[in-house]
Formats: sequence, C-alpha cells, structure tokens
Amino acid sequence: MAEGSSSRAENPVPDAETLQVLRDMANRLRIRAIRATCAGHPTSSSSAAEITSVLLFHTMRYLQDDPENPDNDRLILSKRLPFMDMVPGWLEQGLSAACGMAYMGKYFDKASYRVYCLMGISEASEGYVWEALAFASHYNLDNLVVIFDVNRLGPSSALPLEQCTAVYKMRCEAFGWNTYMVDGHDVEALCQAFWQATQVKNKPTAVVAKTFKSRGIPNIESLENWHGKPMPKERVEAIIELIESQIETNQDLVPKPPVADSPRFNIEEVIVTIPPAYKVGDKVTTRKAYGLALAKLGHVNNRVVALDGDAKNSTCSVIFQKEHPERFVECFVAEQNMVGVALGCAIRGRAITFASTFAAFWTRAFDQIRMGAISETNVTLVGSHCGVSVGEDVPLKMALEDLAMFRVIPNCTIFYPSDAISTEHAVYLAANIKGMCYIRTSYPETAVIYSSEERFEVGQAKVVRQSADDKVTVIGAGVTLHEALEAADELSKEGIAIRVIDLFTIKPLDVATIISSAHETGGHIITVEDHYKEGGIGEAICAAVSMEPGILVYQLAVSGIPCSGSPSKLLDKFGINARCIVATVHSIIMNQSF
Amino acid sequence: MAEGSSSRAENPVPDAETLQVLRDMANRLRIRAIRATCAGHPTSSSSAAEITSVLLFHTMRYLQDDPENPDNDRLILSKRLPFMDMVPGWLEQGLSAACGMAYMGKYFDKASYRVYCLMGISEASEGYVWEALAFASHYNLDNLVVIFDVNRLGPSSALPLEQCTAVYKMRCEAFGWNTYMVDGHDVEALCQAFWQATQVKNKPTAVVAKTFKSRGIPNIESLENWHGKPMPKERVEAIIELIESQIETNQDLVPKPPVADSPRFNIEEVIVTIPPAYKVGDKVTTRKAYGLALAKLGHVNNRVVALDGDAKNSTCSVIFQKEHPERFVECFVAEQNMVGVALGCAIRGRAITFASTFAAFWTRAFDQIRMGAISETNVTLVGSHCGVSVGEDVPLKMALEDLAMFRVIPNCTIFYPSDAISTEHAVYLAANIKGMCYIRTSYPETAVIYSSEERFEVGQAKVVRQSADDKVTVIGAGVTLHEALEAADELSKEGIAIRVIDLFTIKPLDVATIISSAHETGGHIITVEDHYKEGGIGEAICAAVSMEPGILVYQLAVSGIPCSGSPSKLLDKFGINARCIVATVHSIIMNQSF
Repeated sequence: MAEGSSSRAENPVPDAETLQVLRDMANRLRIRAIRATCAGHPTSSSSAAEITSVLLFHTMRYLQDDPENPDNDRLILSKRLPFMDMVPGWLEQGLSAACGMAYMGKYFDKASYRVYCLMGISEASEGYVWEALAFASHYNLDNLVVIFDVNRLGPSSALPLEQCTAVYKMRCEAFGWNTYMVDGHDVEALCQAFWQATQVKNKPTAVVAKTFKSRGIPNIESLENWHGKPMPKERVEAIIELIESQIETNQDLVPKPPVADSPRFNIEEVIVTIPPAYKVGDKVTTRKAYGLALAKLGHVNNRVVALDGDAKNSTCSVIFQKEHPERFVECFVAEQNMVGVALGCAIRGRAITFASTFAAFWTRAFDQIRMGAISETNVTLVGSHCGVSVGEDVPLKMALEDLAMFRVIPNCTIFYPSDAISTEHAVYLAANIKGMCYIRTSYPETAVIYSSEERFEVGQAKVVRQSADDKVTVIGAGVTLHEALEAADELSKEGIAIRVIDLFTIKPLDVATIISSAHETGGHIITVEDHYKEGGIGEAICAAVSMEPGILVYQLAVSGIPCSGSPSKLLDKFGINARCIVATVHSIIMNQSF
Repeated sequence: MAEGSSSRAENPVPDAETLQVLRDMANRLRIRAIRATCAGHPTSSSSAAEITSVLLFHTMRYLQDDPENPDNDRLILSKRLPFMDMVPGWLEQGLSAACGMAYMGKYFDKASYRVYCLMGISEASEGYVWEALAFASHYNLDNLVVIFDVNRLGPSSALPLEQCTAVYKMRCEAFGWNTYMVDGHDVEALCQAFWQATQVKNKPTAVVAKTFKSRGIPNIESLENWHGKPMPKERVEAIIELIESQIETNQDLVPKPPVADSPRFNIEEVIVTIPPAYKVGDKVTTRKAYGLALAKLGHVNNRVVALDGDAKNSTCSVIFQKEHPERFVECFVAEQNMVGVALGCAIRGRAITFASTFAAFWTRAFDQIRMGAISETNVTLVGSHCGVSVGEDVPLKMALEDLAMFRVIPNCTIFYPSDAISTEHAVYLAANIKGMCYIRTSYPETAVIYSSEERFEVGQAKVVRQSADDKVTVIGAGVTLHEALEAADELSKEGIAIRVIDLFTIKPLDVATIISSAHETGGHIITVEDHYKEGGIGEAICAAVSMEPGILVYQLAVSGIPCSGSPSKLLDKFGINARCIVATVHSIIMNQSF
C-alpha cells in the first residue's frame, strides 16, 4: 500500500508513484460508473473521476470507517456520481449546503475541517449558485473549495459557455473567489490546486476544471445526447477492457486522518424551564414572541443559530441577533441560498437551526425546502407577515400560499400559533423535532389567551371555547382565532353558543378533536383562515373528515388577488373576520330550522 | 416648452437648458415621492429620481398618451417608485421580464423599441438576477439596458458590497455585459451612458449608478433605518421647500415618439381546425402529445413561442423546436428566469407563450409564478414527469407537489390530461385562455381513450365509464385514470360496476358532475392521484363536496418520500394503482353490507 497523502502545509504534489495510483483509482471509479449505468448518468460522472480520486484519496482528511465523524473534511456532491453512493452526499443545490457547513466550521466550530463541493456545470446556470458564491466570499469562507466540472454538455444540448473555463474563472473572481483553472483529468494539477487553496486566507477557492464527459470512452467522449442514457451493452466490456489496460498499479491510498478539534456538544432534548413571561390579555405580535423565544432558547443552548434574509426587523429575529450576535447569520435577500445554508448548518447535528423571512418569500426556495425534506434535515423555517392581515403593504408581501406549500412537504411539522405563549412553545417544540418545521407568524398584535402554565404538544389542538349547547365548531389559527372568539362573544349575546378550536399545529392535524367536536356541535364546522382556500386549513380539515358521515364543513378563506388596506378592513373584505363568522353561523342555524 | 430629446444616433447629451429641466423634473419626482410616503418607500425612490427623469423625459421614445403602444420603449421597474404608479411597470423579478421583452423585440418583432429595467440593489442579491444577466448576454440582447440603483442600504442593514460599484461592474462584465459606472444623480452622465448603450452591438448594457437613498433630504440621506418608514410629518414641508428651492425652470419635456416598426397581428381566438390524428388505443405519452400539439398550433399562428429549461428532449418541446426553430427559446437550467422571460414575452399580448420543464422544477420558480398570476399574464407552463410514474429516476425529479402549487395560484387553469387527444385539446384551450395555465404531462405511455371528434371544455369533466348500477365514483387523472379503468374492468368481472371520471381540468373543478355522480353511486367517491395528498386532487374534491350531505371521499395518494423503481411497481407501492382501487371499492361495499 502506498503512503497516504502528505500534510496540507508540505509537499503540495505527491510523488510520481502516488500520482499514478491516483490515476489508476480514477480509472477504477470510471469502470464502476460504467457498470452502474442503470443508476443514471455514467457519462457525466466519468468526467469527474480524477477530481474525485484526488479529493478522496489525497486531499481530503477523514476517517474512512467513520464517515459521520465531525472532524472529517466534508465532500458535497452537487452532481450525480453513481460510483459514490456510499459517501454521504447531496444532490443538487449542494453549494449552499457547503456554504452552511463551511460557515459552521469557521465561525461556530472554529475547527480545521474543510468543505469541498463538486458541481456539475449545467447546475451553475441556476441562480442560487451565484447567491451562494456571493455569500461565501462575503463571509471569507477560506475553508471552502468548489470544483466546477466543466464538461460542456447540458442535459439536452451544449451549454451557453461550452468550455470557456476562462469565463467561469472571471465570474468566480468577480464574485470574490480565489480561482484556478485546471485540466480536470490531470491529477498532478488537481493536487496542486487543492493544496494552494489551503494556503489562501479569507477567500474561498474555486477550481474550474475542464473535463470531457465520457473521458476514456471511445466514440462517446464529449458527444451530445448520451446524457442519462445507458451505455450500449455490447460495447461495455470492450470499453472496460480498454480502461483497465491504462491501469498500471494495484494499490490503494488511505486518506490522512483529520485534526480532532471539532467541539462536542449535546443538542438533544433542549428544555427551557423558565415559563413564558406574558400575561393573559397582553397584546403582542407572534413574530415578536418568536424573536423573544428564540433569544431565550439561545441562552439555554449555545448551538442555537438564527439565519435571516435581510428581514430581521420584520421577522423579529433581530432580537436574537442582539443577544447572540455571534450566532446570527445575515443571508441577505437570497432565500434559496439561505435554506441551503440552513440545511448545511443543521446537517450532522451541528446546530439547532432557525431561518426566518417574510412568509411569502419562502416560495422562492420551494425546491430547496423540498430537498431539505428529502434529506430529512432538522431545520425550522419561520415566515412572518402571513395573509391579508399584513395590511398596508403590497400584495406580493402577503403570504397566502405558504401553508399549501409547507403542507405538501413530507414530514414537515407546521405551527401556526395564535398568541405569544403558544408561539414560545412552538419554538421550543420545533427545536426538538426531527425533520423540517415551519412556524407561521403574523403581523398584527393579538391578545395573549393562554396562561404561562399551559402545555402544548405537536398535533394537539386547543378547544378554547366550549359548552354543552354549542351549535357549530369554528376552527381558526393566528388572527382568525381571535376573530372566532369575537364572533363567539357576539353570538353569545344572542344566546347562540359556538365551540372555538385553536389548531396550533396545522400538520399534523388533531383529527380526533376536530371530529369529536364536530359531532358534538351538530356536525357543523366552519374553518376560517388568512390564506387561500387551496391547500389551506379548510381543505386539510375537509380531507380529515371526508370519510366521517354527518359532518359539513364551511370554508372561509381568502380568494382572488389581495390589495392594500388596513388589516381589519382586509379581513372584512376577504370574508374572514368575526362578522363573516357570525353570518355563517346564522345561515347554518337558519338552514337547520327548516 | 423645451425641445424634446434628440435622436438616438446624434447629440448624446442635450444642451445645458435641457439638462437643467431634467434636474428639475427629477426634483419634482422627488417631491412627489415624499408626498406619497403613505405608499411605502419614499427614501429609496428618491435615489432614482434623476435616473427616472432622464429615462422618461430624454432617453426613452414612447407615446405619452398611448402607454400600451407596441412601438414604445419599455420601462420595467424592478423596484418600487411611488411617483411612478401611472406607468405600466413591474415589481420585483423585473429583469427576467425585461429579458423576455428584449428577446421579443430583437428576434420576434425585429423592431426598434428598446427595453430599460431599473433595479434596486438589494434585489441584485437574488440569484434570478444572475440567471437573467447570463441569458441576456448569451442572446446578445443589445436592445436591453439595466440600471442598478446602488444606494448601499438594504431593508435591514447595509448590503454586503455597500457602494462598491466597481464590484458590480466587474460582475456585470464577467456576465458578458457592456457596463458603465456613473453618478446616478448626474443627469448629463446618465444621458451619455444611455446614448452610448444605443451604439453597442450584440451586448446588453448595464449602468451601475451610485446613488444616495434620500438624496436631497437633509439628515436622512443615506442613513440606515428609514427604509419603508414615513417621513416625520413636521419636517415634510420644510424638506419640500428646500428641494423646491433647487428647481430653476418650469418646463416640461415631451418624449420623442417611437419608430413605428412593430408588427401588428392577431392572437385572439386561435382555432386549430385539423382534428387530432390519434386512434383510440394508440399508446402515446401525454408529453409527446404536448410537443406535437404545440408544433401544430405553431403552424396555425406564427406568434406561438416555446421556452424550455434544457429539458426539451424530456418535455418533448423539441418537437416544436424542430418545426419552428426561430420561435423556440432555450432558457437552460434557470427556471426562475425562464418564467420571467415567458411573462415578458407574453405581456402586451405579443405572443402565445408556452414554457416547459420537469414538473418538479417549477417549484424553483414558485415566486415568479405567483408574480405572474398577480400581473394577470397569459402564459402556459407545462410540467412533464409528474409523480412516481416517472419510475427509474431520482425522487427529486418526481413532481408530487406541483398540483398543490399551481392550485393555490389565483385564477390559474390547471389541465391534467389523461391521453393524447385530451392533451392536444388542453394545448389549444390554453392558447386562448386569459391568465396563467398549467398543463401536467406524464412520463409513461397511456392509451388513447377519446375519439378525435371528442370536444373538451375548461371545467368539464368526462364520465368515461358509467351504468345505472354504479356503486362508487372513482376520480382519476393522468396515469391513475387508466388504473381506474383497469379496476373497472376487473370489478366488472365480479359483477361490480363503478363510475369512472376523468377530471381533465383540476382547476376549475367540475363540481356539478362530481356531486351528481357521487349521489348516483351511493355517495361514495374514491380519488386516486399521482401526487401527494396535501393540496392535490383528493383534497380539492373533499373541499368541493364538503357542504353536500351524504358524500364520503376515500383518498388514494402518494405519501412519504418516493424511491426509484419501475412505474408499475411504484404505483403499487404507493397505493395508487388498479389493485388498490379494487381493494378500496371492496372495502366500501363490505362496509355497506353491514
């Protein structure tokens, strides 16, 4: 067995023998890629064989038999490599996650591990990549290396820049990166570039590698239209033989172990023992309650981090920033990258990660959110300014589709708190949940309705108003819960009792409470929500009771394109205020009496 | 009244008198901005007063009293200017729309009009901006000018680059743009830059303008934390007086008229008279039927354009490209920009615009889609490879949330055709619909079930199997309709009749047919969809029947995170195939008999 790679500071390039082993290991990866054709994209993975070989067997420091060790260098694959299925990796949108990991390493862990991200070139046309490049240079992430595998071909045609690596270099440099252009099949040049990157302070490094898609495969190399197609079977063995004939050694290289300097800590079962400080009747916005709760959580555990997309004064994450400035990450107006950075912070259990912006702006990162769920990452996203109750602002700032978006994310827990106390509990519950969470906060002040001793659980709705005479169950959340309570007060003056339910979590839904309440109130449910009807609370409840006989659901929700106005006027205009609830209850009772 | 601005080719800079009028008009805009404080962001709009004055009263050619005239130069406001509410503009994400308009002008209209886009600098951190910059230079859009209003301050803090206009210049140049740095308050320099831009061939021009947010407003200019806040009332009149004292003239400038060389055409009521060429029983994928129908439509009207995000072989838009290469726009893997470009092509009724990619990748452009709906633009988006029926591919390519996303878009018409004939009709219907449309196509081949004479309408479901004895109504779409038909065949062998409905449009929903069928089949509905339950077909139907007594809905839908496998295996694994429909029908009948 040949010697492991030399240390980072010395001998930038290994000896001739090691170089040959790296070439041979690249060719072995190439053969694995061909054999793995059924998994997808053998041609493009072949282009990265030498890059991967040098990274895995020379440059990177990690424990092969302990891939999750926090001291290990990280490799993020933002392109598919079928021969790499055993390495913990990432598909698509990996550069933002790499930024999150590098930020974590440099600022939170203050550790030696480095982060490498291998990117396919067609992905580089996605805007998030340039958000990530701007982020990494702004925060001087010199522990981050991205490798652009410039192999010219996109999925359906040549890419705009084809193999103009000089243009990629110019763009990376303009975005503040230390940049090298290399022949991506030259293992010596790759060793040199990755070593040089370790010597650069305060700048991330981009390695722009010119490669050929099916390097080493005669008559397919760099031709169009082989993307995603299996190799012609009759040729596979001949091709493999040809590649094997280029292999000169039969050695393995063992990666150097990492420097063991990552902090160890516990982020399991983080418990906040001090009860919320609000009194029933206090007027507080749930977004402010979010900021306060997160700041409080930050005192209980020092691995709580908060990200924001240049909206901290609105989302109130600024409260956390003021108390824990070293754990606040300003991501600017670049939501796609922010979600990726959050995922990168959270992966391997390195942090309890919260990220906030205007709820409407999470739509910009739907695909990243989707990927986060597929990767089963523990991140809580927080969206403020939901619905028309935002009031005096432009329609595009009013989130009326965020519940639909987050509901369709698999295993996402959705909190929609209605007062400051429940918001605080939502934050603490989210901190301990495995998987993605979403907390929806509101713009206007609402009265505190729970006592500081009230206990909250995921999937447990609160019946906040009830009697034996209830005629209808009204289900609200956020501002509409307070409208429901106001409606209950008004109706009680007429001698009409209604039940009022605060859902607290929109997903999972407390189906048992909903169904039993409906049956106890004549089978009548009214849902009222500051959201579009489609995919919102009303539809969720309709679906939940759809197999239950004898229950009718009346949905009050926003429709059409909103306009600007005072919150109370808009709630009235869009039919989701106390007046509309009262009118719906009246019509139900009228219909019953006939 | 002073002379209008000089022609583009001569006199780059107007005379001293005109320059003073432009300065004065800028200050008048500034005063309007201050008076319009209630509308939002007076400070940032003040920074662009000179830019706006020069564009509107010197550089741009348009008919003031005919703002929609197709020959007019276009101005897209990708930032809020309260004094500009009367100019047709665009909020946010405007650069992509500007690219679409410029592409339209250069390649489709081959006309003289030019496109100007004014952008705030905090928006420049959004990735879509760099997608758009890459698009514009790749297509040599020399009729496009973007002005970056670099005023340093973001919504909550100074931006990463603050006022380093040189960095913006470097980035724009690296992205292939002809770039000028100017003092954004110097009307002479602005005139010069905009004139120079007209002389540059094959490159778009970026004007990086250094400005101050509250230029001319003492003690507020360029201070943080005035973003979005109203001016202190007691100071307003004093400030206005100060600005007024700088106004020297009392003249207006009239913009020069445009060159009248835009083609006139008709894209209303585009009728395809040749019936579809398929026979019942033919096996065709709906994505291929989409490509063929679009190509056919392209022969009927020469303003039909198709965009694709480097997925044309998969979406089958390549069929259109082959027949109409001059009307196909390759947008590469940059979906956010693609939607914006599509909106830009479609605005002012310049084209019948279709854009396609993998259905899952539309999630990347959710915010742009949302904006398109708010702007009420006529664009049809097409998503292929929906659901787990994609089969042998990675989970991230399987769209299981696209219906939820498009359903929550206001006024969006959603087609989910189940065979080639209905797909062809979906394309023709979409071409004539005002507002946004979405067509969901599938990966696997499905049998043609309709005759070529069948007529289709938006909001009209097809009852494809029925008898007087039907026990259950099964509602499917796409591949699941064929599963429902297979289930019907199997059940008929046992003597059990079921009704089968093809929804055709998911939005609007044919509620009348659904409810009457349910009542005729014992109140039992089974929905079966290749989509997640949340926000999908089942929930839509639950909501539609939620106020109708005596109807129960059983939902078969995908749950959890999908895996790779053959389409038929995955339909079975996720419980949405004929076997599962049969089992559900059995259980309903069993329960009834007790």
